[in-house]
Amino acid sequence: MDEFDIEVLADPDLEDPVLVEGLPGVGHVGKLAAEHLLEELDSELVRRVYSTHFPPQVSIDDRTAQLASAEFHAVTPEEGRDMLVLSGDHQAQDSEGHYGLTDAFLDVGEDFGVEEVFALGGVPTGELIEEYDVLGATTTDEFADRLEASGVVFREDEPAGGIVGVSGLLLGLGERRDIPAACLMGETSGYLVDPKSAQAVLEILQDVVGFDVDYESLEERADEMEEVVRKIQEMEQQNAPSPADEDLRYIG
Amino acid sequence: MDEFDIEVLADPDLEDPVLVEGLPGVGHVGKLAAEHLLEELDSELVRRVYSTHFPPQVSIDDRTAQLASAEFHAVTPEEGRDMLVLSGDHQAQDSEGHYGLTDAFLDVGEDFGVEEVFALGGVPTGELIEEYDVLGATTTDEFADRLEASGVVFREDEPAGGIVGVSGLLLGLGERRDIPAACLMGETSGYLVDPKSAQAVLEILQDVVGFDVDYESLEERADEMEEVVRKIQEMEQQNAPSPADEDLRYIG
Amino acid sequence: MDEFDIEVLADPDLEDPVLVEGLPGVGHVGKLAAEHLLEELDSELVRRVYSTHFPPQVSIDDRTAQLASAEFHAVTPEEGRDMLVLSGDHQAQDSEGHYGLTDAFLDVGEDFGVEEVFALGGVPTGELIEEYDVLGATTTDEFADRLEASGVVFREDEPAGGIVGVSGLLLGLGERRDIPAACLMGETSGYLVDPKSAQAVLEILQDVVGFDVDYESLEERADEMEEVVRKIQEMEQQNAPSPADEDLRYIG
Amino acid sequence: MDEFDIEVLADPDLEDPVLVEGLPGVGHVGKLAAEHLLEELDSELVRRVYSTHFPPQVSIDDRTAQLASAEFHAVTPEEGRDMLVLSGDHQAQDSEGHYGLTDAFLDVGEDFGVEEVFALGGVPTGELIEEYDVLGATTTDEFADRLEASGVVFREDEPAGGIVGVSGLLLGLGERRDIPAACLMGETSGYLVDPKSAQAVLEILQDVVGFDVDYESLEERADEMEEVVRKIQEMEQQNAPSPADEDLRYIG
Repeated sequence: MDEFDIEVLADPDLEDPVLVEGLPGVGHVGKLAAEHLLEELDSELVRRVYSTHFPPQVSIDDRTAQLASAEFHAVTPEEGRDMLVLSGDHQAQDSEGHYGLTDAFLDVGEDFGVEEVFALGGVPTGELIEEYDVLGATTTDEFADRLEASGVVFREDEPAGGIVGVSGLLLGLGERRDIPAACLMGETSGYLVDPKSAQAVLEILQDVVGFDVDYESLEERADEMEEVVRKIQEMEQQNAPSPADEDLRYIG
Repeated sequence: MDEFDIEVLADPDLEDPVLVEGLPGVGHVGKLAAEHLLEELDSELVRRVYSTHFPPQVSIDDRTAQLASAEFHAVTPEEGRDMLVLSGDHQAQDSEGHYGLTDAFLDVGEDFGVEEVFALGGVPTGELIEEYDVLGATTTDEFADRLEASGVVFREDEPAGGIVGVSGLLLGLGERRDIPAACLMGETSGYLVDPKSAQAVLEILQDVVGFDVDYESLEERADEMEEVVRKIQEMEQQNAPSPADEDLRYIG
Repeated sequence: MDEFDIEVLADPDLEDPVLVEGLPGVGHVGKLAAEHLLEELDSELVRRVYSTHFPPQVSIDDRTAQLASAEFHAVTPEEGRDMLVLSGDHQAQDSEGHYGLTDAFLDVGEDFGVEEVFALGGVPTGELIEEYDVLGATTTDEFADRLEASGVVFREDEPAGGIVGVSGLLLGLGERRDIPAACLMGETSGYLVDPKSAQAVLEILQDVVGFDVDYESLEERADEMEEVVRKIQEMEQQNAPSPADEDLRYIG
Repeated sequence: MDEFDIEVLADPDLEDPVLVEGLPGVGHVGKLAAEHLLEELDSELVRRVYSTHFPPQVSIDDRTAQLASAEFHAVTPEEGRDMLVLSGDHQAQDSEGHYGLTDAFLDVGEDFGVEEVFALGGVPTGELIEEYDVLGATTTDEFADRLEASGVVFREDEPAGGIVGVSGLLLGLGERRDIPAACLMGETSGYLVDPKSAQAVLEILQDVVGFDVDYESLEERADEMEEVVRKIQEMEQQNAPSPADEDLRYIG
């Protein structure tokens, strides 16, 4: 197997498509968002990218094995622009793998004539979120203006540590290829899988790209997560001294 | 030395052979199983595979040194199909090594016309085993059907973490070469070398491939391991408070 | 992207330039010194060096992303020799990256006809510094003589652990290319960013190379750091038992 | 710089030389032994081997820097066979570096017509040594017989963990090139630099290869080390309860 190996499964014509990336990361925000698109819209598996920089691993699906890979699905919705959705269960395991895979992903994008790249992800805030802002970073000021008009928030020097991994490199290497690229980062606590943050990111993307999806299943997953959080909080309260006890101390 | 270096030691003709892999892993199940085949059946060393991804190490056997390698033995038993048995003391030390070595192993397999691959290993359950199920994963449904008929158990999405290392990649890369491959994973606690699990795996393989071996030496090793477990349990009981003491506490 | 990728942004003629390197390191001494030169003197960005051995990362500056890189600025001051200043936010992440990047940096230097290399850095002493000596190491005795005349201190077998990273390799690989190279290492505690140490290094370089810069902004940063140190010491004193208490114990 | 880079400094004719390797390792036994040969016998620096797998580092010797490397000295003593002595301060930092450097070292050896390789090192016993046995491992039985006649001890399956690093690979890769190679491993506690173990190894080598060196300086270093050990033991006794106290407990 080559270091980076692109398997061609189908070659549909796409019209001015955008590339939408959602690989695993903070709060699984990007991955949830990309997978939601694939669940809600008709899609066709068009490419698999294998790499010796992925974990040496197969996953078991029913009875058969699937080699670690990233997948591209073509989505041609009735409303909005065509999309090439990049998803998967793995990130590269080293720096050279991140660079090489991102180059391979952009090669696939260029095969399909991709005109813009959207890297979806989460940005950790360290606390529970009430209102889910979506932070942005781009390769051109013109792109930033358009995103700002759709509600994306740009804050100076944020995220402070930059953007790491494939999402960041899609901007860095995209810019070097003159492909406009943006990173849409949903705020998220960073502690839990966060379907609400994924929905916030998708709603921005929907406004920019123009598809039409239902968010019911994502809202259900968000409710499930809130139930989990509620139970954790309950357990913590039972272990902590009761408020009554604490009040008494202050009175007595 | 090349990154992956195949040394040719003999080139016997094999008839429709199967490749049986048993490198070190969970409970040493695969390694014990492969080595048992080589002890019980006549075999000939046909290939050694060296790699700069193996540990930089020689082992000392009597007075002379043997460079880290994986070995292929040809086994042509009276009963059952010819086998190419892959064994050794080492795994690759990084992701690229796992991919490259598995490709080299499949190259050797194709040299000998291998028609099916069986990767032997263990799957950790975290608790002591009474009845040793053998879990399976394959590259084709047809292969899975045949294995199920021989008693292999297929459970949805198990093992949950997928299959890591050479055993997993023999399926993943085998499938890409159109070589049917299966992983037979004996259940094992994961804490100890497990000859019983190795025997369970071999009994399945025996049914599928058709050789005839005696299990006495493996049963003796299993008895030795049970003696070890018994002694550990005794020591733990002596350190724990006696049940009598605990009862008294509750009464008093 | 290539493993090491030099982007040409401008190609001014420089007269007998010296290469001045200030990448991140102990006390950020070299980085502060190089950045101070670029703030105080007119400069032009001439090269960016990208590498798959840098972290897979973009930094966000205002709204747009910048791929991890090292930058060369050409500085042609009225007084003193022309300079090629190498700065950046990253070091390579592995040994091969350090070697390869240093070779790429020397390639850029040779493109511009660099005649001497000055690697700027800090040397940790483990204690707060009163007087900031600047230690030296070079590739030739003649170069060492000149530096000693400018106040650089040479101590036998110091630094004891040698010089690690790009600064060290600029000497090691520079020597192999017959480019005279020196490392100027400002003493620094090693615990804090140290603008005073950076100033000490620059004052030596000023004497050797002949530029004329103002140190006010560096002195302001040094004052800020001293304020930080003062506050830390105050907090430590409040937590420690007062000397009075301790005396009493001995008396009572 | 190439991944492995051999610098030619001199090319004297050597007659049927042996290669003697003493790089850093357990108890610095091999390094002490090789350096003792170079101190006691006339030698000429003939090769330096650089590698991107060495640490990215220069060492400072007086005022000038020396890039991390391994050195070959030619030794043509009046008595005994010519020798090519390999020494240095570094080991490779990864598995591929160990393999590649050992291949480069054997290339240099073959340039000079080396007929036998002696890898010198220590084998840790975990306790202080009274009598310093020298363990052996070789590539051929004939070589083992000769070494046994000179007092080398061969113990079945020892060292249990095999031999790791360049010393081990000189045997493993030497055997693949049909160059007889042996590892001479002086027993050593493994906790301290051990000049006595180095002397034990050299006395064996002296018997096999036939040189004549004085051991006074090595004995002085051994005395210094014993003084260090004595002081450590004293400090430990002062901290431990005195033997008198312990006796009383048993009496009372």
